[in-house]
Amino acid sequence: MDYQAVLDEVATRVAPEIGRGQVARYIPALASVELGRFGMAIADADGSVYGVGDWEVPFSVQSISKAFSLALVLAQDGETLWRRVGREPSGNPFNSLVQLEYENGIPRNPFINAGALVVTDRLQSLTGDASTTMLDFLRAESGNPELAFDAAVAASETEHGDRNAALAHFMASYGNLDNPVPTLLEHYFWQCSIEMSCRDLALAAGFLARHGVSSDGSRLLTRSEAKRINAVMLTCGTYDAAGDFAYRVGLPGKSGVGGGIVAVVPGRCALCVWSPGLDARGNSVAGVSALDHFTTLTGWSVF
Amino acid sequence: MDYQAVLDEVATRVAPEIGRGQVARYIPALASVELGRFGMAIADADGSVYGVGDWEVPFSVQSISKAFSLALVLAQDGETLWRRVGREPSGNPFNSLVQLEYENGIPRNPFINAGALVVTDRLQSLTGDASTTMLDFLRAESGNPELAFDAAVAASETEHGDRNAALAHFMASYGNLDNPVPTLLEHYFWQCSIEMSCRDLALAAGFLARHGVSSDGSRLLTRSEAKRINAVMLTCGTYDAAGDFAYRVGLPGKSGVGGGIVAVVPGRCALCVWSPGLDARGNSVAGVSALDHFTTLTGWSVF
Amino acid sequence: MDYQAVLDEVATRVAPEIGRGQVARYIPALASVELGRFGMAIADADGSVYGVGDWEVPFSVQSISKAFSLALVLAQDGETLWRRVGREPSGNPFNSLVQLEYENGIPRNPFINAGALVVTDRLQSLTGDASTTMLDFLRAESGNPELAFDAAVAASETEHGDRNAALAHFMASYGNLDNPVPTLLEHYFWQCSIEMSCRDLALAAGFLARHGVSSDGSRLLTRSEAKRINAVMLTCGTYDAAGDFAYRVGLPGKSGVGGGIVAVVPGRCALCVWSPGLDARGNSVAGVSALDHFTTLTGWSVF
Amino acid sequence: MDYQAVLDEVATRVAPEIGRGQVARYIPALASVELGRFGMAIADADGSVYGVGDWEVPFSVQSISKAFSLALVLAQDGETLWRRVGREPSGNPFNSLVQLEYENGIPRNPFINAGALVVTDRLQSLTGDASTTMLDFLRAESGNPELAFDAAVAASETEHGDRNAALAHFMASYGNLDNPVPTLLEHYFWQCSIEMSCRDLALAAGFLARHGVSSDGSRLLTRSEAKRINAVMLTCGTYDAAGDFAYRVGLPGKSGVGGGIVAVVPGRCALCVWSPGLDARGNSVAGVSALDHFTTLTGWSVF
Repeated sequence: MDYQAVLDEVATRVAPEIGRGQVARYIPALASVELGRFGMAIADADGSVYGVGDWEVPFSVQSISKAFSLALVLAQDGETLWRRVGREPSGNPFNSLVQLEYENGIPRNPFINAGALVVTDRLQSLTGDASTTMLDFLRAESGNPELAFDAAVAASETEHGDRNAALAHFMASYGNLDNPVPTLLEHYFWQCSIEMSCRDLALAAGFLARHGVSSDGSRLLTRSEAKRINAVMLTCGTYDAAGDFAYRVGLPGKSGVGGGIVAVVPGRCALCVWSPGLDARGNSVAGVSALDHFTTLTGWSVF
Repeated sequence: MDYQAVLDEVATRVAPEIGRGQVARYIPALASVELGRFGMAIADADGSVYGVGDWEVPFSVQSISKAFSLALVLAQDGETLWRRVGREPSGNPFNSLVQLEYENGIPRNPFINAGALVVTDRLQSLTGDASTTMLDFLRAESGNPELAFDAAVAASETEHGDRNAALAHFMASYGNLDNPVPTLLEHYFWQCSIEMSCRDLALAAGFLARHGVSSDGSRLLTRSEAKRINAVMLTCGTYDAAGDFAYRVGLPGKSGVGGGIVAVVPGRCALCVWSPGLDARGNSVAGVSALDHFTTLTGWSVF
Repeated sequence: MDYQAVLDEVATRVAPEIGRGQVARYIPALASVELGRFGMAIADADGSVYGVGDWEVPFSVQSISKAFSLALVLAQDGETLWRRVGREPSGNPFNSLVQLEYENGIPRNPFINAGALVVTDRLQSLTGDASTTMLDFLRAESGNPELAFDAAVAASETEHGDRNAALAHFMASYGNLDNPVPTLLEHYFWQCSIEMSCRDLALAAGFLARHGVSSDGSRLLTRSEAKRINAVMLTCGTYDAAGDFAYRVGLPGKSGVGGGIVAVVPGRCALCVWSPGLDARGNSVAGVSALDHFTTLTGWSVF
Repeated sequence: MDYQAVLDEVATRVAPEIGRGQVARYIPALASVELGRFGMAIADADGSVYGVGDWEVPFSVQSISKAFSLALVLAQDGETLWRRVGREPSGNPFNSLVQLEYENGIPRNPFINAGALVVTDRLQSLTGDASTTMLDFLRAESGNPELAFDAAVAASETEHGDRNAALAHFMASYGNLDNPVPTLLEHYFWQCSIEMSCRDLALAAGFLARHGVSSDGSRLLTRSEAKRINAVMLTCGTYDAAGDFAYRVGLPGKSGVGGGIVAVVPGRCALCVWSPGLDARGNSVAGVSALDHFTTLTGWSVF
C-alpha cells in the first residue's frame, strides 16, 4: 500500500469538509484553536510513519487518552478491571449520570467519562502517579521526548470540572473509587491535557496495530488483550456515534473533543486524524470523513 | 482451514457449557425445547457447508430474522431507511420504551424490537407481503424449499404480544409506521416463527460473507451495504451484550431467543450455532462460548 | 358567603387572562372550540348553584372524568384498587411510559392516563359497561338527564389513540388489565367525550364537598374515602403542575384538556371553571387564575 | 379539643407499630438510636404545648430542617427563589440525579436534597452563615436556648457525603450554585445535625400554624407565604410517599431520616412525632401511623 498516495487522496477528498462543525467551547483553551486545521498520519506496524497537512502540529488529546489509560491498566492488572467498569455501549451522551445511577455506580464502559475516571483511579492505585505514567508511556511509544502536559488546559478543565466532580463523587458514593476525588480529578485532567501531533499519536497507537507489541519490540499486552481493546474502541470509542462510526468507517477508533481521532487497522497500521470542527456528538467532522475515505480507498474496513 | 476439524474441536471445548442457562419461557412453544441441544455449521463463501452436533435440527429463528429483513429493505430501498431508525447501540434491554420516548419514536437501531418493527413495516410497504418475501428469500439462499413458518409459534407470540403491540402503537403515535398495527404485528411474528437449522442459517447468511453476493451469484447488496450490515450486527446484534460479544468473539453476529446465533467472518464464511440455554441477556450460553472458541482457534476475530 | 358576588368579582379579575394559552389541538373536535370562552359555577354542599359567564355552555370533560371513575370504583370496590395503581405524583408529563416501565406496569396514580385506564378496566369488570355507568351517575348527580357522549369526539380520540393503545398494551404485558384492550379503550374514550357545563360539573362533584354523600342524600363513599379522593386530586389532579396548583390555589382539583377544572372546598362547596386556553402543562390558564382569585377572596385554601 | 387526651389515645393506638421499620444506617451516629422510642407533641397556635412518650428527648432533625430553611429564604427573599428550584413532586427517590439532569440542574422542589442544597446556597448568600442563622431561629421559636449542632453527626454526614457532593457539583455545572461546594455542604450538614425534641419542633413550627406569625408575635411570612409552604409540604414533604401521606394523614408534613415528622393543622396547631423505625421510603412507620390516628380522632385532615 502506498500510504503517502492514500493520504494525499484522502486530503483532496476531505477538503470541502474542513472547517465544518464547531470547535469545543467548554474551556477557553480549546475554543481558541483554528477551525480550518487538518492533519492525518499513518504509522505502519513496522514503525514507518507518513503524514499530510498539519500532521506534525500538536493538539490536545483529550479523550483519546482514555484508550491509553485502558491499555496501561489491562497491561498491569488484566481482567480484574471489568468488575468495576462494563464494556457495553452507553446509548447516552458521554457524560450522562442516568445510566450510572441505574447500574449502581458501575460505568457502562471505559470510554465514557465515568468509566475513564475508574480506569484512572485504578492506574493511580497501581502506579502512584497515573498522569506521569501515561506521559512516560506516550513519550516512549511516540519516540517524542518533548511531549508535555498543557498546564493551562488542565487548569481550565479543573475550573470547569463540576460535572466530572459530580461523576466521581457519585461513584465514590457506591464505593467504586479507591483514591480521593481531588487526586483522581487532577490526574484525569492532566492526562487529557497532553499535547500530541497526529504523528505522535499514530506512532503511540502502534501497539494496537501490532497486536500488543510495543515500539521497542517488547510485549505490552497479550494478543487477546490488544484485540479486545480494539473491540471496545469500535463499540464505544466515539461517544454516542459508535454505531454510525462502525457503519461508515468500520475501524476501531477513539475520538477526543480536541478534534483528534485515533483508528486502528489490526495487523497493519495505526492512524491519527485531526481537525477541530466537531459534529453534534463531539466527533471531528473532517476526521470521520477522512477515515471514511480511507477505508473506501483501501478496502480495509474490518467488515 | 480445515473447517470440520475446527468444528469438532469447538464442540469438544464447548461441551461443559451445553445445558447451562435457561430456555426462553415467555411462550410455551419455546419453553418445551430440550436444553441440552447443540449444533454448529460453517458455510464457506464458496457455498460448501460443514457441521457438528444438532446442526441439521430446525429451531425457531426468532430475532435472527431481523438481520434478513434489514438486508431485504436495504437491497430494495437503500439508505432511506435510516430516516426512520437509527444505528446506535441501545444501551438498554431489548424491549425498552424509555429511549423510544426520549427519541420521539425513532428506534435506536434495527435490531431492537421497535427498530425491527419499523424495518418490517417498510418491507411490507415495499413488497405487500413482508413475511412471505422473507420466507422465499431464506428458502432460496439456504437451498431448502422445505422452510416454513411455525403457525403455533406465531399464534403464541401473538397471544403474548402486548409488549410489541405497545411498541408499535407508540411509534404509530409519532407517525413512524405506515401499515396498520395488526397487519404489521402479524408479519413480524410470522417472520420470527420460521424454523431453520444451523445448516440453513449459515447458508442463508452467506451473502454477508460474500460482501453482498447471493447464493446464485447475483448481487443482492453493494459491497458497502454488506459491510454496513456487518457493522450494525457487531455493534447491535446481541441485545445488551454487544460490547461483550465484540470483546469475546470479535465477529458480527445476530442472536435470537430460540438459542441461535448467526456470525460472519467477512470475506471467508458465515456461521450458525444453536443451543437453547440463554444467559440473562438473552444470548445462547454455549453459542457465545462456541464462537469464542472458534475465533481463538482460527484467529479470525476482525480485530 | 355571597357566592354570586364572589363569582362576579373573580370574573372581573380574571378577564385579562381569558383568551391566553392554546386550545388543545391533538383532535379536531377540541381544536375548534372558541378560545375566548369563560364560565364558572359554584355548587354549595346544600345543592344550590351559582354561575357566571358561560357557565351553562357544555364542553368536553376529558380528564375530569377520571375523578368520577375513581369515585365509582372506590364506592363499589374499596381499597383493593390500590394493588393495581399507586397514588403518588408522577413527576413526569401525563402520558409518560418511562415510569410505567420502571414500576412494572403499575401506574403512579389514577389521574395519569395509564392509571385512569386501570380504573376504567376495573369499572368495566365491576359493571359490564363502564361508560354508561358513568353517564348515568353524572346525569343523576348533576340533575341533567340530557347529558350525552359526543360520538364525534370519541371517534376522533380513537383515531388518534395510539398512545393510549400503547399504554394499555404495555400494562396488559404486565398482567395489569382484565378486559381486552379495544373494549377498554372504547369505554375510556366514551367517558372522556361526555359534554357537560360548569353547572353540571359543579353539581356532579358535590359529593366530594359533602364528604361522600350523593345528591339524593344517600352515601356514595365513606367520609374517609371522600377525603382520600380529595387528597389524590390535590397531589395528582393537574398533570405535572399539581405542586404549583397546590401552591397557588390550595384546593383539590382535577383538570381536563377541554379547559375545564373541577375543584372542591371540603365541607363547603364544589366549583367548576372553564376556559379553553391551556398552558404548557395542559391546564386552563384562566381557569387556574380564577381559582387562585377565588381562594384569595374567600380565604378557603385548605392551607 | 383536649390535646392531652388525643395524644394519650394516639399513643395507645400506635403502640403495636412502635419498633417496626429500620433505623437509618447510612451513618453510624443515626444507626445507634434505639428503635423502640416514640414521642409526640402538639403546640397549639396560642403557644401552649402538650406531649406524650419521649416527647422531650432530642433527636437528629435531618431533613425536617429543609422546611425551616425554605421559610427563612422566603421570609428574606420572597418569590425569586422559584427561578432556581421548582415546586413539583419529584416522583423519584429523594436523591435521584435523573430528573435533575433532565431539567438542566433545576431541582424539582425544595425538599429533595438537590433542592434543599439550592435553598441553603441562597440562605448562605443572604446571611453569610446559613447554619447559624437557622440555629438561632430554631432556638428563638422553640424557646430552647440549649439547641445545638451535633458535631459528630455533621462529621459523619460529611464523611459519607459523596452523593450530596455529586448533586452539588452537578448543579454547579449548570450554574445553579453561588457558593463553593465545600462551604455549601458544610452548612447543609450542620443544619441537618441539629438535635431537637418533639416539643422543640412542634413549637418551632408554630409559625406555620399561625399563618406566618412568629412566636414573639412578629410576622415572619405573609399569610400567603405560610400557606404556600404548607402546600409544598403536603405535595413534597415526605419523599416519594407524599401522595400516600396526603391520602392517609391529610396534613402538610415534613419528615426526616432521624425518624421525626413535623405536621401542621393550618390555623390550629403544629405537631411533631418521633419514632426512629423507618419504612422503605424513609418515613417513620409509627410516626405516619400516629398522625393517621390523630386526623381520624380529630377530623382535622385538610380534606
